[in-house]
Amino acid sequence: MPELIFPLDSSKKFPDQQIVGHNRWHPDIPAAVSVKQGDSFRVHCREWFDGDIHNDDSAEDIRDAPMSKVHALSGPIAVEGARPGDLLIVDILDVGPLPQEDSGPLAGQGWGYTGIFAKSNGGSFLVDQFPDAYKAVWDFSGEKATSRHVPGVEFTGITHPGLMGTAPSAELLGNWNSREAALIATDPDREPPLALPPEPTDAVLGTLTGDAFDKVAAEGARTAPPRENGGNMDIKNLTRGTRVFYPVFVDGAKLSVGDLHFSQGDGEITFCGGIEMGGFIDLRVDVISGGMETYGIREHPVFLPGNTQPQYSEWLTFSGTSVTLDGEQRYLDSQLAYQRACLHAIDYLTNFGYSPEQAYLLLGAAPIEGRFSGVVDIPNSCATVYLPTAIFDFPIAPTAGKPVKIDPGIGAPRAAS
Amino acid sequence: MPELIFPLDSSKKFPDQQIVGHNRWHPDIPAAVSVKQGDSFRVHCREWFDGDIHNDDSAEDIRDAPMSKVHALSGPIAVEGARPGDLLIVDILDVGPLPQEDSGPLAGQGWGYTGIFAKSNGGSFLVDQFPDAYKAVWDFSGEKATSRHVPGVEFTGITHPGLMGTAPSAELLGNWNSREAALIATDPDREPPLALPPEPTDAVLGTLTGDAFDKVAAEGARTAPPRENGGNMDIKNLTRGTRVFYPVFVDGAKLSVGDLHFSQGDGEITFCGGIEMGGFIDLRVDVISGGMETYGIREHPVFLPGNTQPQYSEWLTFSGTSVTLDGEQRYLDSQLAYQRACLHAIDYLTNFGYSPEQAYLLLGAAPIEGRFSGVVDIPNSCATVYLPTAIFDFPIAPTAGKPVKIDPGIGAPRAAS
Amino acid sequence: MPELIFPLDSSKKFPDQQIVGHNRWHPDIPAAVSVKQGDSFRVHCREWFDGDIHNDDSAEDIRDAPMSKVHALSGPIAVEGARPGDLLIVDILDVGPLPQEDSGPLAGQGWGYTGIFAKSNGGSFLVDQFPDAYKAVWDFSGEKATSRHVPGVEFTGITHPGLMGTAPSAELLGNWNSREAALIATDPDREPPLALPPEPTDAVLGTLTGDAFDKVAAEGARTAPPRENGGNMDIKNLTRGTRVFYPVFVDGAKLSVGDLHFSQGDGEITFCGGIEMGGFIDLRVDVISGGMETYGIREHPVFLPGNTQPQYSEWLTFSGTSVTLDGEQRYLDSQLAYQRACLHAIDYLTNFGYSPEQAYLLLGAAPIEGRFSGVVDIPNSCATVYLPTAIFDFPIAPTAGKPVKIDPGIGAPRAAS
Amino acid sequence: MPELIFPLDSSKKFPDQQIVGHNRWHPDIPAAVSVKQGDSFRVHCREWFDGDIHNDDSAEDIRDAPMSKVHALSGPIAVEGARPGDLLIVDILDVGPLPQEDSGPLAGQGWGYTGIFAKSNGGSFLVDQFPDAYKAVWDFSGEKATSRHVPGVEFTGITHPGLMGTAPSAELLGNWNSREAALIATDPDREPPLALPPEPTDAVLGTLTGDAFDKVAAEGARTAPPRENGGNMDIKNLTRGTRVFYPVFVDGAKLSVGDLHFSQGDGEITFCGGIEMGGFIDLRVDVISGGMETYGIREHPVFLPGNTQPQYSEWLTFSGTSVTLDGEQRYLDSQLAYQRACLHAIDYLTNFGYSPEQAYLLLGAAPIEGRFSGVVDIPNSCATVYLPTAIFDFPIAPTAGKPVKIDPGIGAPRAAS
Repeated sequence: MPELIFPLDSSKKFPDQQIVGHNRWHPDIPAAVSVKQGDSFRVHCREWFDGDIHNDDSAEDIRDAPMSKVHALSGPIAVEGARPGDLLIVDILDVGPLPQEDSGPLAGQGWGYTGIFAKSNGGSFLVDQFPDAYKAVWDFSGEKATSRHVPGVEFTGITHPGLMGTAPSAELLGNWNSREAALIATDPDREPPLALPPEPTDAVLGTLTGDAFDKVAAEGARTAPPRENGGNMDIKNLTRGTRVFYPVFVDGAKLSVGDLHFSQGDGEITFCGGIEMGGFIDLRVDVISGGMETYGIREHPVFLPGNTQPQYSEWLTFSGTSVTLDGEQRYLDSQLAYQRACLHAIDYLTNFGYSPEQAYLLLGAAPIEGRFSGVVDIPNSCATVYLPTAIFDFPIAPTAGKPVKIDPGIGAPRAAS
Repeated sequence: MPELIFPLDSSKKFPDQQIVGHNRWHPDIPAAVSVKQGDSFRVHCREWFDGDIHNDDSAEDIRDAPMSKVHALSGPIAVEGARPGDLLIVDILDVGPLPQEDSGPLAGQGWGYTGIFAKSNGGSFLVDQFPDAYKAVWDFSGEKATSRHVPGVEFTGITHPGLMGTAPSAELLGNWNSREAALIATDPDREPPLALPPEPTDAVLGTLTGDAFDKVAAEGARTAPPRENGGNMDIKNLTRGTRVFYPVFVDGAKLSVGDLHFSQGDGEITFCGGIEMGGFIDLRVDVISGGMETYGIREHPVFLPGNTQPQYSEWLTFSGTSVTLDGEQRYLDSQLAYQRACLHAIDYLTNFGYSPEQAYLLLGAAPIEGRFSGVVDIPNSCATVYLPTAIFDFPIAPTAGKPVKIDPGIGAPRAAS
Repeated sequence: MPELIFPLDSSKKFPDQQIVGHNRWHPDIPAAVSVKQGDSFRVHCREWFDGDIHNDDSAEDIRDAPMSKVHALSGPIAVEGARPGDLLIVDILDVGPLPQEDSGPLAGQGWGYTGIFAKSNGGSFLVDQFPDAYKAVWDFSGEKATSRHVPGVEFTGITHPGLMGTAPSAELLGNWNSREAALIATDPDREPPLALPPEPTDAVLGTLTGDAFDKVAAEGARTAPPRENGGNMDIKNLTRGTRVFYPVFVDGAKLSVGDLHFSQGDGEITFCGGIEMGGFIDLRVDVISGGMETYGIREHPVFLPGNTQPQYSEWLTFSGTSVTLDGEQRYLDSQLAYQRACLHAIDYLTNFGYSPEQAYLLLGAAPIEGRFSGVVDIPNSCATVYLPTAIFDFPIAPTAGKPVKIDPGIGAPRAAS
Repeated sequence: MPELIFPLDSSKKFPDQQIVGHNRWHPDIPAAVSVKQGDSFRVHCREWFDGDIHNDDSAEDIRDAPMSKVHALSGPIAVEGARPGDLLIVDILDVGPLPQEDSGPLAGQGWGYTGIFAKSNGGSFLVDQFPDAYKAVWDFSGEKATSRHVPGVEFTGITHPGLMGTAPSAELLGNWNSREAALIATDPDREPPLALPPEPTDAVLGTLTGDAFDKVAAEGARTAPPRENGGNMDIKNLTRGTRVFYPVFVDGAKLSVGDLHFSQGDGEITFCGGIEMGGFIDLRVDVISGGMETYGIREHPVFLPGNTQPQYSEWLTFSGTSVTLDGEQRYLDSQLAYQRACLHAIDYLTNFGYSPEQAYLLLGAAPIEGRFSGVVDIPNSCATVYLPTAIFDFPIAPTAGKPVKIDPGIGAPRAAS
């Protein structure tokens, strides 16, 4: 295993570590550590809420989760000699929960969680149907996950970093802030909000102090959305063995990483999603000098996924189109179509004894596939969601008989919004 | 091979066949043929434009393609004893181009086509970037496709019916017509249009004549969009071995099928998409009595995909988010995110010598995967598109070297809008 | 579909066809048809016993199957310009049972069979444990097979030609005959025999007559074993999309093909194995001039398997080593190790209600994987056999509970040796 | 990660550890540690030669490798309450090289090795063609391996324990010793030997001392061969996520594990094979009481392989039959057929610039598939070996052009026998 260059002590909060990471995007956040081209190294990652979510049977922590504190990111990692215009090659050598920490209060110590955010705290993909907060705790056993809150399933996690990216240039950061501010301005009081503006409260900015801290805290972009630098893409296929090519916007590239997921379904539909955990990631970096021009990759990373993702060969598939639940026809709206497909899947699973929120939490956590099936057939987009049938302990496909009824157990904890 | 119950003569137009199909949805179109529960049978399918698109090097036929004539559908096929509220099980036993017709003027006779619709004729997924009409002709060899218009690639087709569905009830049809009319009314002169209203011109309605014909032609829903009955879902994974469960809305279920694709990428982004062909499909039907209630499947089919889809294990992946090319931030718009991901892929492929339209046509035809990666990270959805690297004759991933330059050949035919 | 160059009439016996094939290997058998390099074409194939095995519930036909009549081969097909020393490229474009012949007395007309040969008629892989004759009839539905003789399973066939090869040179044929005669001479009265010598009775030799016929009938090698020219390799992975490179030993290459299998497990352990059927195969041929030298392929074909084989992702695996059932230790004998692994699988399946012969017939027919796991750990080879769990209608893995007991139905027909 | 119950200090030899393992099979070796049913735990494993093979460019260590010292096994691990007749469930939660030990003199510290044994020291699968000793050192990077001794390839390892098993009963051990002695007696002076008798020299037997040590050292079965208890099965598919069911022959089951492989091809054909390394394995155990009878598993483990094995979708395949290189016909000998298939693959690879021993070492180390294709077609078995084409940096399939010639680099070290 490669050298540990960014350690985290599980007994201490993220801002109290020996090397302090960050939770905003800004080119002026100094590199925390530096590596050479060709180096392999290990980085510890804190779960995105820095330990505020607990292994218990209450969803109050999810309801009250402090969005101003996310994401706890490890980095920036400067890569010597990387220059704007280069492509940064990042090989994901390994990724997993905290080694040798099989139990403890921190997600990643043998367990992780999926949360459905309440409407009052950001909401989720299906916020209108699920306005409250819900939580499921998952136990890890090797590569597999089970949950006392969602019985009857066991699946191999598709482990990956939810968030990885290079630092933006000042110009790029300016674009982000202005375009997102313009969007917010269209409906500034919306709940949940349209976007998250810069927020000095709870900002963690590495070694910055004083005026420099204040300036960056006032300007730094929030880490929730993915953007041209990658960031919080939540691509479940960034598994072990993946090679990513990131555009470089600042000297040293300034790579940061965090938001590890033990597993996640396509879309991370619960928002506080996938199965959140702290852990480690082993990376190797290299540089293609001038690669942004050579390969025409001027924004957004390109990647070659690893070849050891969990294999399933039987799927049960649900579809949806861009008509609202109220029957209103929308024009080619794949976001809506995927919502409808997921709702169809949730409705279906309730026939087997699951509560709707159990089904929803499962779709967020298990390695489900979400596909754009038709995007041109006016006025309806068609989206599909694929559930691996082998993750269920019982037969899940329709038959001439009745659906098996499982014991839903204690159910998923809920906290009213 | 099962009995041929819906034959088509390749030398005759669709309305001139012994058994005449239809190209509108309406419960009053009489069943063309009838089968029993448990029966297996073969159906011939005409390519969706009934032979108006030619195996040549011009895109004028695509530019002028008559949308009022689509889709040429085989059916309705009545299933004896099926009642509203049942689930109709449809097993896709086999599907392919026209057997024993290796050459000829009809798509499906050893060849097929991909068309990018012009803005003036419906447009496509990337209509703003590609306002004109383009075409690629693909030659079939067993399960593989190559094209003189898109050199340097060969891929195994993911063959499937683009369109299959049951007849709507009168009530459901009424919903469709009213909700789509409401959408059109918001911008009735838009080009391309928001939706397609009922259109008596070129309507083909089986054996209907006289007043009955006129009534149904005036009310019949167009077949372009997928809806609660399935229909034009363009799901590339409806391959051989797939089992589909359709809701039944009318007595006899009245199953129809058409729009066969030799292959297609997720989204069918070119609109006249996938690789269009005529051919055959072998089906077996059965019924789960009362299944809509038992399994809570009240709309939209559910399916179990077949397990002989083409296998690829190395992919090159592009991502996009919901920011327009002009830099405007949109709110969680996966449709836009997928557009941006596809545009990134197209831009990338031009580094290797392809014209943008060649790259676009390829994405529409090859078995690419399009996934909802993140749908909650306000304000950006993240979409990803996966290209199988093995379909290229040359190395396609970024390296420290320069991209290989291919000979783009004669290019893809274009016809100005 | 390509031109049919080798037709067979299902109502006539193999020697009575318009174009007569052959059932012995000899360079002097004249080409039946001729094709050009680059040509695609269709060939009909008769099931290997030319219709002597019936769709019934008796195994007497298997017990009495006339080995002197096999294999009914379509060809030889001369490829213009192919010369000794070349590599013949053969692309398998498509393969399947008899199109449009869904029922009838000939295997391939909607059904096929698996036979376990009796000890008195060649025997099988597990001849000491199964000295009698057994049979299972399989019904085809699309790509899937089920059997009234082996209930509780349904699987996607891995359809392929059991036998394909080029004609041997006179010198190569001489080697075959002398080395096989030497083996037979070591135990000429063994039952089952060690090898099958040339046999004029029932020889079918294309258009040969008179003295030429008699000479070739006396010298022609039997088609049972695979040899340097390919031949009866029974490689289940020669599915659609496969490209094979055959060494060319005579002018024109003289390709022949037959012994189609709807499906087969690795090893074709029942001998009369896989699921035997007549049908069609579509091929495309080309030539690498001098390729045997360029690529050092002087014997035995090399191939690139197709990528649409049935996908399974969960397997139940049994192992065996090279110790006999009587407890005798053999030295690194993988043949024995695989026998023991298969016997372990058969024993296991009997816990669920199958008779041993039902389990054996299943292993011969389903797409099981048989692997050389360890071949060096003196004195024990280790072989493994992988059963896809999804082919069973019931849970097949060991659990804390008791095994499910299925109804074995009418069982597999048996005819005493 | 679970509790470490069997630690090894990389700076000390195997017999000098705090807890001492064993290298012989015998029921009287006391349990080194004890676990409860349902427990998960971590075990360190020493590479099989306890550090005698070095990361250098000489094969002398392979030539002189002390077979009397192998295999360094971790265990026995007693499972509380397990009784003869039970089935022991062993879940492989994780397995890999030594964590946090990225460099060092011990295989598993960032590197591993493949050795071809010399004829004078046990020999290998192709001992007649390769009588000398050869070695390749592989460097690990995440899940991937490359070698300075075999350039031009990189592959994802299929990491697994080569050896895992339960202790034999006294009766079973007696059977082993008598049947293997009988085999040795047939040719006691053979080189390499037919089997390895008990050998007190270098025996390591846990805590045993004095007379008890001497008795067990005199009787203990060597660990080279797999047997009824599992043991050195060298099944490459025992990867993460695998569940194995072992027969239990003694109280407490007494599980032992070792011989970890970073990767291995089917057959482990080089003998000192796969890519040998020390490392760790995380296991969870449980018991099916009386399971040997309930499921009829009286010998040899049964297993469900994990679903995260490296995926490859394009293969180049070679075949062989049971004819010796000298042209002698053998009767249905799959061991020979696989040798011939491997030799064909080796010959083929030399066309691209590899030395035969480089090709041989590659086949031993990479995730190649070796299959029993035909085992009944008298007199020839047919075996096939599948090479994943994507592991090569260059195109490996035959084409109309000439083979690419790679630079074989420094080649593979050799030491004359």
